[in-house]
Amino acid sequence: MSIYRVLIKSKDEQGLVYRISKIFSDMKLNIVSNSEFVDRENSLFFMRTEVTGENLDVEKLHSEISKSIPQNSEITIIDTSIRKKIVILVTKEVHCLGDILMRWIEGELNSDIVEVIGNHSTLENVVTKFGIPFTTISHVGLDREEHAKKILERLEKLEFDYIVLAKYMRILPPLFVEKYRNRIINIHHSFLPAFIGANPYKQAYERGVKIIGATAHFVTNELDEGPIIEQGVIDIDHTYSWKEMQKAGRDVEKIVLSKALSKVLEDRVFIYNNKTVIL
Amino acid sequence: MSIYRVLIKSKDEQGLVYRISKIFSDMKLNIVSNSEFVDRENSLFFMRTEVTGENLDVEKLHSEISKSIPQNSEITIIDTSIRKKIVILVTKEVHCLGDILMRWIEGELNSDIVEVIGNHSTLENVVTKFGIPFTTISHVGLDREEHAKKILERLEKLEFDYIVLAKYMRILPPLFVEKYRNRIINIHHSFLPAFIGANPYKQAYERGVKIIGATAHFVTNELDEGPIIEQGVIDIDHTYSWKEMQKAGRDVEKIVLSKALSKVLEDRVFIYNNKTVIL
Amino acid sequence: MSIYRVLIKSKDEQGLVYRISKIFSDMKLNIVSNSEFVDRENSLFFMRTEVTGENLDVEKLHSEISKSIPQNSEITIIDTSIRKKIVILVTKEVHCLGDILMRWIEGELNSDIVEVIGNHSTLENVVTKFGIPFTTISHVGLDREEHAKKILERLEKLEFDYIVLAKYMRILPPLFVEKYRNRIINIHHSFLPAFIGANPYKQAYERGVKIIGATAHFVTNELDEGPIIEQGVIDIDHTYSWKEMQKAGRDVEKIVLSKALSKVLEDRVFIYNNKTVIL
Amino acid sequence: MSIYRVLIKSKDEQGLVYRISKIFSDMKLNIVSNSEFVDRENSLFFMRTEVTGENLDVEKLHSEISKSIPQNSEITIIDTSIRKKIVILVTKEVHCLGDILMRWIEGELNSDIVEVIGNHSTLENVVTKFGIPFTTISHVGLDREEHAKKILERLEKLEFDYIVLAKYMRILPPLFVEKYRNRIINIHHSFLPAFIGANPYKQAYERGVKIIGATAHFVTNELDEGPIIEQGVIDIDHTYSWKEMQKAGRDVEKIVLSKALSKVLEDRVFIYNNKTVIL
Repeated sequence: MSIYRVLIKSKDEQGLVYRISKIFSDMKLNIVSNSEFVDRENSLFFMRTEVTGENLDVEKLHSEISKSIPQNSEITIIDTSIRKKIVILVTKEVHCLGDILMRWIEGELNSDIVEVIGNHSTLENVVTKFGIPFTTISHVGLDREEHAKKILERLEKLEFDYIVLAKYMRILPPLFVEKYRNRIINIHHSFLPAFIGANPYKQAYERGVKIIGATAHFVTNELDEGPIIEQGVIDIDHTYSWKEMQKAGRDVEKIVLSKALSKVLEDRVFIYNNKTVIL
Repeated sequence: MSIYRVLIKSKDEQGLVYRISKIFSDMKLNIVSNSEFVDRENSLFFMRTEVTGENLDVEKLHSEISKSIPQNSEITIIDTSIRKKIVILVTKEVHCLGDILMRWIEGELNSDIVEVIGNHSTLENVVTKFGIPFTTISHVGLDREEHAKKILERLEKLEFDYIVLAKYMRILPPLFVEKYRNRIINIHHSFLPAFIGANPYKQAYERGVKIIGATAHFVTNELDEGPIIEQGVIDIDHTYSWKEMQKAGRDVEKIVLSKALSKVLEDRVFIYNNKTVIL
Repeated sequence: MSIYRVLIKSKDEQGLVYRISKIFSDMKLNIVSNSEFVDRENSLFFMRTEVTGENLDVEKLHSEISKSIPQNSEITIIDTSIRKKIVILVTKEVHCLGDILMRWIEGELNSDIVEVIGNHSTLENVVTKFGIPFTTISHVGLDREEHAKKILERLEKLEFDYIVLAKYMRILPPLFVEKYRNRIINIHHSFLPAFIGANPYKQAYERGVKIIGATAHFVTNELDEGPIIEQGVIDIDHTYSWKEMQKAGRDVEKIVLSKALSKVLEDRVFIYNNKTVIL
Repeated sequence: MSIYRVLIKSKDEQGLVYRISKIFSDMKLNIVSNSEFVDRENSLFFMRTEVTGENLDVEKLHSEISKSIPQNSEITIIDTSIRKKIVILVTKEVHCLGDILMRWIEGELNSDIVEVIGNHSTLENVVTKFGIPFTTISHVGLDREEHAKKILERLEKLEFDYIVLAKYMRILPPLFVEKYRNRIINIHHSFLPAFIGANPYKQAYERGVKIIGATAHFVTNELDEGPIIEQGVIDIDHTYSWKEMQKAGRDVEKIVLSKALSKVLEDRVFIYNNKTVIL
């Protein structure tokens, strides 16, 4: 019996939980897990419920819920037996990619890596060893738009749910970001919103901070300003050069990106007002 | 309009959330916050819901819930407009007591300190400055039982909800612990279950650990073995003597105890199987 | 026998440690502790050594070191038997002040609190209970300069080493900052350089961060841009309103400020290039 | 010009730093980095200095230091241009091994992986992809001693500095441990000394702890009692089954082991009294 995830984002109203749980009860569904959150300031209701049931009729469940909660709500029902698919974009650094690969080997990723695309071919060797296709799409001689278009052309031939920027060191143009709205996950190597943009470790070194961090976020067209999914930090001190900060930072970058990816793949992450609710 | 907390601990069953939320809906209660947890291994259901409603009939709410969930469930309904009361037991160290006092002054404790009892009078001066009664009950010349009895006699004259051991450095005998079952909160100055018993910092120093911690737990008759409410840690290294560990440890002790106390006072802590569920 | 702290900041050169340790050896001083740091990028040498010795001749020690290391070095020799003195500036919040007070009572502050000055009298009651003078210098009806001048007048009558801004919620004008250069320690309620300026918790809430922090730093004339001494963080999530972030943040604010103060009072903090070296 | 590491462990005496730094100065060596530690309780002196110098005469340096410090001191001089070599022992889990492999690919390991030995062949496929030899030495049908002997036979054919137990799930017998004293690094999946022995996550789950951790330590003949090199922790709560703790714990296990390994390979770790000093 498959587990289904019911995701609801709705205007808040009295009795919502009652009405939804009544449907689960009437349809004889077992609740495996359940979380809700109400943003009272904005009067918004979020719910993530995992249910099982014999011969579960997904369409009926969707329509029953739809009828009993406010109009214009977002209702998504996901069959967890269908593995999600991701594409990974990289440049030259291996640690974030490698961390995802090893989780995939360990069997904890619960998704398939459809392809890795690099603007350099540095990591091709590592990726193809594991039987995963690697495509190099060099940016040399191309402007940002032209390069992005070539990647988009490649992506259109692939079937996937999310794009993971695993230390992909180039900015994606608006066209690209719009096309995969809320589906591109980036790791920024600073504790956002501090040190937006290039070389955050050098910025951190010059500012003399005592803690550095990393931030996984959805990509929007404002540089490093998208909804934050996960953050992590490590202590440093005056003995760290910025190169050493960079090296130490890799550990937190890879863990933060992998944790964020895992939450996204488990459908825990709701987006609104440029923020995330994680259930 | 007062906020009421509805706390439920019950055998798990299909449709529980539906049945309970139906009652809230039928009685036209507003749900201010809601958390549930199901321990599937033991088939146990925990729920903490904050509701408001005009002319809320607590007895009726209790009886309606009682009728629609499994027998032998624990249902508690708490009027949050009634401030809780605590008694604090101390020996000589001020940091945990002081942290609680300052939160009380800041107005974030949401409870009243009925009295502080010390087996030394060292802290009397600090406590009485704030208009809080201090009673010294010396242990000198008494065995553990005799001393505990004298404290019990004093406690019987007071009205309170919880006893906080704020670095009270003596072991309470079974009689005492039984009488205030699940109502005594202790701070142990180690990362339990490591370093049970006396002088955990010295034990930690000798073992050469790189992280030390503190643990807030309910007191049971097994030394330092009660249900854990909150834990915290700090990094140390080889340069720390055990006295320096002790000093550094004070910060984590006081924060861990105060956080645990705050969760208990907000009725977030459920106890079962010598563990806690915190909703 | 008193412990003396020898603090050296110098251009780096080959053989510095040898030359300095030769002096200690020649003068038959015992080295109690020793730390050095070389900033290779800027070719700067920092040293903090604690020594004891019978009939230690401080002037001779200073002049011997002075002769054997590069000109224009900064050499400071501190008699640790002389307790340092601090003045604390506050507004209305008690947690940072209270944390310092409790450490003072516990005997771990190793310094005296000369006076607390508030622009409100809210905390007078707490402070005077402990026999510490409190002066209210209201800002009402005064512009920033005028108000600062009145505080300066009061400070000129006091003898102290450092000024601690324990949630003093006003900006000090350049005149004030210049006068006590490198002697004013502030706690900023964010993880600098994120969320400079007013209401950082609200800024953090709106940005949807998953970790918040606090930063203790020396005050310069660039708002929240002075050399960072200490930082700390805590995890939060989408369930926190900005008021709850503020409440949770108090714990990290007070610990970070007290740790920074402790390092400053132990003469561990060297300042250069708007950064700190902590030995 | 190669960098040499001078490691000294000696009885403490007045003037040690002076005498040693005099030798560096006389031999015209440049000090690249320097750390010392004195354990006053045991009157022990530890020093780690990195030096460079043209035509550095290692034997002369060793003998000069030897003559000027207490007898029976340990003096080790290491040429950092010679890469260290490690052998890794594994069972079935990939995360710790994979983390080391990825650091090796990233070029941050500064050492070579001579061979990976598994008691299962599960990870052979991953390892050999990277051109690293993998030997399976099955324990099936052998008692602990017999199995260990077969591994020892294989190890005797290899040249290496350290053995890394990357989730090698078997206990090594005394003979094995003695032979590679202070050269075997293990990762234990708990926050030692809590939960020694088998299945610490299950123990942690049953005890209801709120934080779990991992410990990297040198292996001795007392199970999980060797000198601790590095520890790390993560927060958990009542919602974690022990399987989920295990999964979450992998992140801290791999980071803690890799950090410990990095410190050992950089010759930062001194061992004494079953503890470590890390310079």
